Parts: sequence; C-alpha cells; structure tokens
Amino acid sequence: MKMDVQILKDYLPHAVKESRPFAAKGEVAAYIPELSKAPKEALGICMMDKSGVCTSEGDTGLTFTLQSISKVFTLILALMDNGEEVVFSKVGKEPSGDDFNSMLKLELVEPGIPFNPLINAGAIAISSLIQGKSPQDKSNRILTFFREIAGSDKIDINLGVYRSESASAHRNRSLAYFLKDNGVLTGDVEEVLDVYFRHCSIEVTCSDIARMALLLACDGTDPVSGKEWIPRRYVQIAKTFMVTCGMYNASGEFAICVGLPAKSGVSGGILTMVPGHYGIGVIGPALNSKGNSLAGVHLLELLSQKFDWSMF
Amino acid sequence: MKMDVQILKDYLPHAVKESRPFAAKGEVAAYIPELSKAPKEALGICMMDKSGVCTSEGDTGLTFTLQSISKVFTLILALMDNGEEVVFSKVGKEPSGDDFNSMLKLELVEPGIPFNPLINAGAIAISSLIQGKSPQDKSNRILTFFREIAGSDKIDINLGVYRSESASAHRNRSLAYFLKDNGVLTGDVEEVLDVYFRHCSIEVTCSDIARMALLLACDGTDPVSGKEWIPRRYVQIAKTFMVTCGMYNASGEFAICVGLPAKSGVSGGILTMVPGHYGIGVIGPALNSKGNSLAGVHLLELLSQKFDWSMF
Amino acid sequence: MKMDVQILKDYLPHAVKESRPFAAKGEVAAYIPELSKAPKEALGICMMDKSGVCTSEGDTGLTFTLQSISKVFTLILALMDNGEEVVFSKVGKEPSGDDFNSMLKLELVEPGIPFNPLINAGAIAISSLIQGKSPQDKSNRILTFFREIAGSDKIDINLGVYRSESASAHRNRSLAYFLKDNGVLTGDVEEVLDVYFRHCSIEVTCSDIARMALLLACDGTDPVSGKEWIPRRYVQIAKTFMVTCGMYNASGEFAICVGLPAKSGVSGGILTMVPGHYGIGVIGPALNSKGNSLAGVHLLELLSQKFDWSMF
Amino acid sequence: MKMDVQILKDYLPHAVKESRPFAAKGEVAAYIPELSKAPKEALGICMMDKSGVCTSEGDTGLTFTLQSISKVFTLILALMDNGEEVVFSKVGKEPSGDDFNSMLKLELVEPGIPFNPLINAGAIAISSLIQGKSPQDKSNRILTFFREIAGSDKIDINLGVYRSESASAHRNRSLAYFLKDNGVLTGDVEEVLDVYFRHCSIEVTCSDIARMALLLACDGTDPVSGKEWIPRRYVQIAKTFMVTCGMYNASGEFAICVGLPAKSGVSGGILTMVPGHYGIGVIGPALNSKGNSLAGVHLLELLSQKFDWSMF
Repeated sequence: MKMDVQILKDYLPHAVKESRPFAAKGEVAAYIPELSKAPKEALGICMMDKSGVCTSEGDTGLTFTLQSISKVFTLILALMDNGEEVVFSKVGKEPSGDDFNSMLKLELVEPGIPFNPLINAGAIAISSLIQGKSPQDKSNRILTFFREIAGSDKIDINLGVYRSESASAHRNRSLAYFLKDNGVLTGDVEEVLDVYFRHCSIEVTCSDIARMALLLACDGTDPVSGKEWIPRRYVQIAKTFMVTCGMYNASGEFAICVGLPAKSGVSGGILTMVPGHYGIGVIGPALNSKGNSLAGVHLLELLSQKFDWSMF
Repeated sequence: MKMDVQILKDYLPHAVKESRPFAAKGEVAAYIPELSKAPKEALGICMMDKSGVCTSEGDTGLTFTLQSISKVFTLILALMDNGEEVVFSKVGKEPSGDDFNSMLKLELVEPGIPFNPLINAGAIAISSLIQGKSPQDKSNRILTFFREIAGSDKIDINLGVYRSESASAHRNRSLAYFLKDNGVLTGDVEEVLDVYFRHCSIEVTCSDIARMALLLACDGTDPVSGKEWIPRRYVQIAKTFMVTCGMYNASGEFAICVGLPAKSGVSGGILTMVPGHYGIGVIGPALNSKGNSLAGVHLLELLSQKFDWSMF
Repeated sequence: MKMDVQILKDYLPHAVKESRPFAAKGEVAAYIPELSKAPKEALGICMMDKSGVCTSEGDTGLTFTLQSISKVFTLILALMDNGEEVVFSKVGKEPSGDDFNSMLKLELVEPGIPFNPLINAGAIAISSLIQGKSPQDKSNRILTFFREIAGSDKIDINLGVYRSESASAHRNRSLAYFLKDNGVLTGDVEEVLDVYFRHCSIEVTCSDIARMALLLACDGTDPVSGKEWIPRRYVQIAKTFMVTCGMYNASGEFAICVGLPAKSGVSGGILTMVPGHYGIGVIGPALNSKGNSLAGVHLLELLSQKFDWSMF
Repeated sequence: MKMDVQILKDYLPHAVKESRPFAAKGEVAAYIPELSKAPKEALGICMMDKSGVCTSEGDTGLTFTLQSISKVFTLILALMDNGEEVVFSKVGKEPSGDDFNSMLKLELVEPGIPFNPLINAGAIAISSLIQGKSPQDKSNRILTFFREIAGSDKIDINLGVYRSESASAHRNRSLAYFLKDNGVLTGDVEEVLDVYFRHCSIEVTCSDIARMALLLACDGTDPVSGKEWIPRRYVQIAKTFMVTCGMYNASGEFAICVGLPAKSGVSGGILTMVPGHYGIGVIGPALNSKGNSLAGVHLLELLSQKFDWSMF
C-alpha cells in the first residue's frame, strides 16, 4: 500500500472530477419522493485518518439517509446484545446471489432464514433482535449507538423519509410476514418494521460515515481516545460481510475491482475503509442497476488502483 | 356414462366403507385449533340430482368451513361484478405447478400477477375485485351470493375460524403485500384480507356444497326453478379452472384419475359434479400431502371409474 | 353443441379468412433452417368426421413436421408398451407452469422426474420407454404406429429436419443428461435423444393429424372399421394431458377460450378434436410467444365459440 | 498476526489431534469408486514458509486429486491466456448462493453466464478458454503449468479417476450443454469436458498444494527464486474469488470463521494461505454436507483463531 498523504490529497480532486460524469448513466432512487429529490450529479468523499483528520473533496456538505448502510451497525448492535449464537440462529452467513429484496431462498432453502444480515430479509430479522422494552426504546438505543460511533450528537432520523418508507414499503412488509411465518420473527411485525424503517432513515453526512468506518478500520477502538466501542470480533464479522455481501448483488465485482470492505445504501452513500488507515464516506446519488452509486464506485476503483488498497 | 340411480344408491355404502380407511394415512389440518378438532376418520358424500333430491352416505351431518372451495364462487362473483377483461388483468389462466401459497412466480415471472385465481395469491387478488362500499359490505355481498346459490339462508361465517385464520395467516399477509408491491392490489391490504378470511370461513354441510355444485353442473341455471343464477360463460370459466387447478398441485392427477371439475378445501371438503347430472359434496378431514381429502379423493375415484364419469 | 355440417362448411372460409391476418403478429420458428423456411402467412384446417370425410379450408397442402404433437402418441405407445405404473414412475401428471424446456423443477422438486410427459424433459423420458432392440428398432416401431393411426403409409421422417434438430439441440441434450443424473433415464442418452429427434421430425399434413385426432375423438377405435387401435383408458389419459398441458404454457388459456383437448407443435401445427365428432388438424407456422400458432389458435377460438364446442 | 514459528510447530500436533475426530461426522465422496476408497479418518496439513520449508503434521503422505482446487489455477491460466475482458464475458464475479452444480441461475438470470468461475458451470466455461490446438494440447498446457507452480515434475493425471469422472459426470454434461445452448461454450462440448475432467483428476500431495498456495501468498512470485510465475493482478483476482466463492456454498461461513482465501475439493483437499507468510495444503477426505473437509475446516479454524490469521 502506498499511503503518502500529500499524493492522496493531490490526486483526490482529479479522481472526483473524472468520476463525476459517470453519474449521468445512473438513476436516483425514486420509490419515495424524498430520495428522488437528491442531486443526481453530486459526488463527495471524506477520508478520515487515525488522528481524526478529514481529507474531503466534492459535495461533502450533502446530507443523506443511511438506508442499507445502517444494516452493518444494527448487525453489530444485535451481536453485542445477543452474541453470535443467537444472531446466527436467525440469519445465515452466505451471499445469496439474489436481489436484495428477493424472497426466493426463504421459500426454497431450508431452514428458511435469510441468507445473510445485509439483504433486506436479514436486516429485518436483525432489527427484531435489538434489545429494548418497546419499539421506541429499541430505536432510541440504535440512534444513541449510531451517534456514539459517529461521534456526533446531531445525527437524527429524517422523519419525512421514515414516514415515506413506512408507507410505501409493501415488499419489506411482505418479507417480514414471510419471516414471521417461517418462525424467524417472533414479535409484532409492524413493530419490527418500525425499528427497521427508522434506522434506515437516519440522516448523515460523508464525514459521519467516515468516522463510523474509521472505527471499523481500527478494529472497533477509537484511534484517538483509545476507547473500545465495539468488540474486535464483531468488527471482524461485520467487515467480512461487507466484503462478501456489502454491495448488494455486485459485491463480488466490487471485491475484485476495489477490494475493500464496504456497504452501500440506496441513497447513494458508500461506507468503506482502508483497514488500519482510513475511514471513508462517499456520496453520489445516481445508482447503477444493482443499487450502488455509479460515480462513487468508480471513484473508489480509481483510488484503490492508484494507491494499491485491495486487501487481496 | 352409466347413470342408473338404483345401482348408484346400492354402490355408495360400499364405496364409502372402502374409502374410509384411507383417512388413516392422512393428517387433519392443524394450523388453527378449530380445524385440528375435525374428526379425522369422518367421510361423507351428498349427491344432488337435477330434481334437487339428495343421495347421501356417511358423515353428512358434519359442518365444515369452505376454505379454498369458496374461491370458485368469489371468482364467479368477481366476474359478474367486473367482467372477464378486468378480472384477467389481475390474475392469469395457467396452472402454476407450485404450492398453493408459493411466491416464486410472483417474483420470477412477468407481469407479476398470480398465475390463476385458485392459488392463494390469485384468490386474494379476486377478493379485492368484489364490489362493495366497505369490506363489510363486500363480505355481506359474498355471503348473500353464497346463500342464494346454496339455497340456504342458514349458512354463515364461523367467527372462531375467521378470527383464527386472520390471526395466524402470516403467509397470506406476505402474499398480499407482495401483490400490493406488484400493483395487483390497489386497496388497503388488511381490508382485502378481511374479505378473504371471511369467505374462507363460511360454514357449510355436504348438501350445501352439493347444491352449489349442481348449479355449476347445470351451467348456472337452477334445474328446478329454471332461474339463471350465474351466466353460463362464467360457469364455463369456473369449471375449466376446477379441472386445471382445482385440486391444488394434484389437479393433473385428479383429472386423470377422476376426470371431473372439482375444488378442494383444507377443511377436507371437495365440491365436484357430474356435468348435466349431479352436484356433489364430499367431506373427509384427513388430508394428503397436497392438501386434498385422502378418503374423499379415493371415494370419487371409485365412483368415477365405476360409473364412467370422466369428462375425458 | 350445434353440429349442423352445412353451417360449418359455410362458416369455415370466413373463419380462416378472419384468422389469417393474426399470423402477422407472430414469428416462424427459426432455430433450424428447415423450420424458418415455412410460409409465415399460411393457415389451413382439416376436419375429419366419423365417416372419415374431410372438410378442409386454406393451405391444407402444406407439409410440416409433428414436433411436439408427436409427444401425445409416443406417450400412448409408451403406455401400451409399459402400462401406467411404469410410465408414471418416470413422469408426473401435473402442469408445470414453466417453459416447455425448463429445468427448474428437475432441480427443485423431489423426486426430480419431469412434471408431465408433454414438456420436453417428460417427452424425452417417454422416448426412453419405447420398447425395441435398438434405437432404430424403436424409431421404426414409432413410425409404424404413427402410420397406422394416421391411416397412411406415406408419412415418414424428414431427414433434413431430423439432422438439424439433432445438431442444434443443446438444451434437449442438457435436459437428457440431467434426467440421466436424476436416474430417470437408464439407457444411453444419445440413443434416447435419437429416438426423440426422429419422432419429432415425422412429416405430415393437416389431414394426417386430423385422422390421428379422430381416433382420439372416438376413444381409440376407428369409427369406420370398428378396429380398436388404442385402449380407451390410454386415450383418456392422453386427452386429459392435452387439456392440462397440451398448449405449452398457454394450456390454461386455451382451455378457457377453446375448451378442447389439443397439442401444438413448434412447426405451427395443432392437433385437436371435438370429442365424439371430429378430428381436427390445423397448420399456421407463425407462432406467438408461447410457441403456439397464432392464427391457428384464433381460428379454433372462433369455431369453438360459434359452434359451442367447449367441453366445459 | 502472531507468527512465532516455534509456537506454531508446537501447537500443530495438538490441533490435528483435536480436529481428527470431526471426520467421523462426515462422509467420503462416493460418486466414483476411486474417491470412495479414501481413508475417512485421515487428516494432514503442510505449511510452506517463504524460504520453501515445510512444517507438516498428520497424514501428509496421502495423495489425492485436486478436483475443484484445480479451478483456481485454470482460472489463472485462462486469464493469462485471454485477459480479463474475455474471461469475464464468459463468467461473472458474484457468489451464486446456490449449490456448486446448480443450473437455476443459468435459466433465470440474464445473460445466462455462470455466476463465477469456481462453480462447476463457471469452471467448465473457463476450461473452454484455455489456449491449445487440441484438447490434448490444452490438457498438456494445464498440466505443465500446474507442475511449474507446484515445483514438481512428478504430478500427473490419475487416469482411473479421470475415466470414472468422465463416465459418471451426467450433471456436468448437462451443465455444459446448457452453456452451449446459452452461447457461453463455443467449441465441442465433449472436448471441453475432457479438458475439465483431466485437470480435476490431477493427483497431488499436501506439500504440492502448499507450494501452489505459497505462490499465491507471495503475489505470484516465487519467494526463493524471485521469478514471477503469475501476474500479481491475476493472483489478486484468484484470491478474491477464493474468499467469496472458494468453499462452495459455505464460503461466507469460512470467511467469518477462518478469514483466509481458500479453495476446497471434493477429495477432501483444501488449499489456503496466510498471505505474505505461508502456503497451506490440507487433506481430510470426510466431507460435510457442503462438500468441504470437516476435520480440515476445523483444523484451519483452530489455527486461524490461535494465531489471528483472519484477513478481516
């Protein structure tokens, strides 16, 4: 790995400029009005190093909702709440090869649990495992955890997005009732979904997710304060899933082209990291057919190849 | 066809006696407590001829809920309410080859409508097409229609079954939300499901469904009064679906072994007919792995072979 | 049913004329050169009554290969050779809901036998059941049987079609090896396929298949000579499959719109019948997306509705 | 990572002893007689460090055929022969979530190419890309390449295994003809399969595959001689696939429990590595339900956890 900071800083504007036009080939998510308003041509990146200093470029002022990016951290919280054995009795560990909202394997493959915690079915099952006396309590615990690891008290749920998600999420409801029928969900389906919609609707900036990613890049321990926020084993699990399943059904391609643990969201965000070095947040709302930020993926590909970041 | 009535009457006790032991190999539906209480060894048949006279044998006093048998008549009512074009924009005309509650083809096959109106997904879509100002109004229209064609004011919804169905039907909810997501259902999902659960829970006896079947056997016209209750074209459509899809995923086998239009329900009922001659109601709660009455199917096979009833 | 012969003869030219333009919306099968040369606009029908007299209209001079139509009669021959028990240990009795060359259910549904004898996998399994000392002997027995029931010594294999089918049939080879792996085929795969390709390549005219259909319409017995060529039970089985699976994945629709047992082939032929009255052969090479003759299906729909032919 | 060599040497006998009993829960592959004769209780490991020195424990004298392990190196040879663009026009980059010999996605997912080069369909497609004037020439090039990277002129094809594989591989033939039909294979199917069966039947020992693995662990360059045998980019691609798809449908679980690039074979072999440090060969013929060596996986899990080898 070639980590000369000055070369990186010098290269970043060029990489963003070269990647931005790729947005033109994509589409902003349009299933709820709030997402469809995102600026299609935007592209921003924030890289936070171990001293907590950010190198930023492009439209880093943009706020966006975590969407599927949140699934990495609810998985971690569920692991911290329940341990591995309980969590992996409800979700598997394998890439599914199917679309993120597919129900095929729930019907076809015994024992009818979601293949992994990063597809929708799996993330809904994970939401049901978050401890709390009530759905509101669970949502509060998630928000508090996210604020802590992002190092920001300001991040909050975008209520407009939350309400739209909840109102339009027929496919997620279908998934959740299927899970209920398979015995994977034990609680009230609408309550579980409420927890799920809320954590998907948490609003952040690139620097917030760069900070969250830095914690994973440093095995769960804040590199500045030395405080361990997440047990290392759970970070390891999360990073493994980010490699095998983090970029929807293009995870294998991303692993070959970029080679870093990453998680994308339908809002165009990508959380990724250079393990041991950088936490990275990217935003680029125009998506490819697999649901990943077109310009964002291209930008990460350029950087990974230039600086030899692949883990492989 | 050999329709000597006396021979039939003489043969019936023998056929019931020979078929009854087949129940031992099956299981009574147990997904709700109300169904699980049904007497496993029971078997009864009622054959109504064109003068309205019943020939009965076995446990014909037993009451049971229509369950999937109701789907034939909600299809007919939906056709009468909307016409063929509207109905077949929401459901297809093909056997699916999958389980009655499968979601595979909703995900895999464009345009994402149920393959036919007799699988669960299709019957839920049909329930959404029944005219009425409210779910209650729709349910009342269905109940009134069923009473008319059964010639009985007494038949009614079994509220215990209805409540249990509604409380436990996670898979049907999953199907309904999938249909909503695919744009097949336009109304409120819970309201549509309420209409669906209610018509599945209408309680009848063998003679009630023999009367309903007789109307289909006589092309929609009451053979005694001469009144046309159902347009002949819609009876034709219903009978065709009963042959190709009426016995769940064993419809092809039933067509080869019995050769009559039929519809089974998970309560163990079978509605069938000898076109132009008899309406037939059968009850036998013990089911085979495909969801059809074991003793009931065997009884119909004996009768069809003895009296050469197959349409083919 | 309204069977006035003169009205039928008067109506036929009109029906053919009205149906012919539908060919324009379809495509002639093009996977082998021999099929692609068929005249797209052609449409012909031959109806043979119980005295053996033909009423014909349109392009009835056209010769074409049986293709999938042959599957009905190899099924019958396999039943005559082996009985029901053996045959139905190798193929099921259910419509599959999938494409005619699909392999999904062979992989997904135990016991891994073809769902029915009219999809490709099933017909290949049936070919393996034809008795004979050698593939050539089996093919000869099939050809002899087809000649007998068509009442014509002249019909023969089109060797050009046979060779092209054999050379290009990678998907059928794939199906056959899958069946071999599942233990459905026991002999040499290439020998079984040779038998299959040959019977698909038997060349006929409309009047030939009208004659074959008449035999089925008369329960297996030649209405003129009184000779029983096929046991009635096997005719019954064949007719049932023709209703539930005969028109590929549009069988359900055909049953509702036309209501007659039928089998189509990719050459544009349709063999159908008015049970007890007529054997019917239709040719119209332009196919719809399901693989059935567009103009041919429309023609049969017009006639069935006009003369109330539906069995249902 | 804690790489004290002496501690490793001291720990290895303990780890092998503790892992060996797990073989009892598994089964030796039995689809051909040659594989079924393998000693079920055997377990051996060979670790080769960068100076080419082996640390071995257990039954390392056992010879076994590469089977699926060969797929990693035919992929590399195909990349060296054709470049990335050609190779990835014939196979994808994604884990499939299905069994290694599944055909579902070839039928269901456009463009009908295998999801990745390590499932059977993908490896057959890769075999078709090896350059050579004849199948024999291609097989010779593969064998020569394998000998070079294993640093052993002695390794050769086990002709008994090859002949049995070829004779019994109906499912692979089915896959190959499906690929031919989809336009993925362009050459003669039997010739492609011959190349495939031969490279699966190359016989090795643990130290052979440890040497092959060491080359990957050192980015393609022999750490002793300094000679580059494989371009680094292709090693990177291979290692990425080994993480996402290398352990059949348990790759995700292996990544979480062990965290190393690995490829298993149905003979019970596992090739893996500690990048930058060790090439590792393991043999343990008793397989779990996913097709991986039971005792072998357990042994690697113990070592990875003890010495903190996970890449994640």
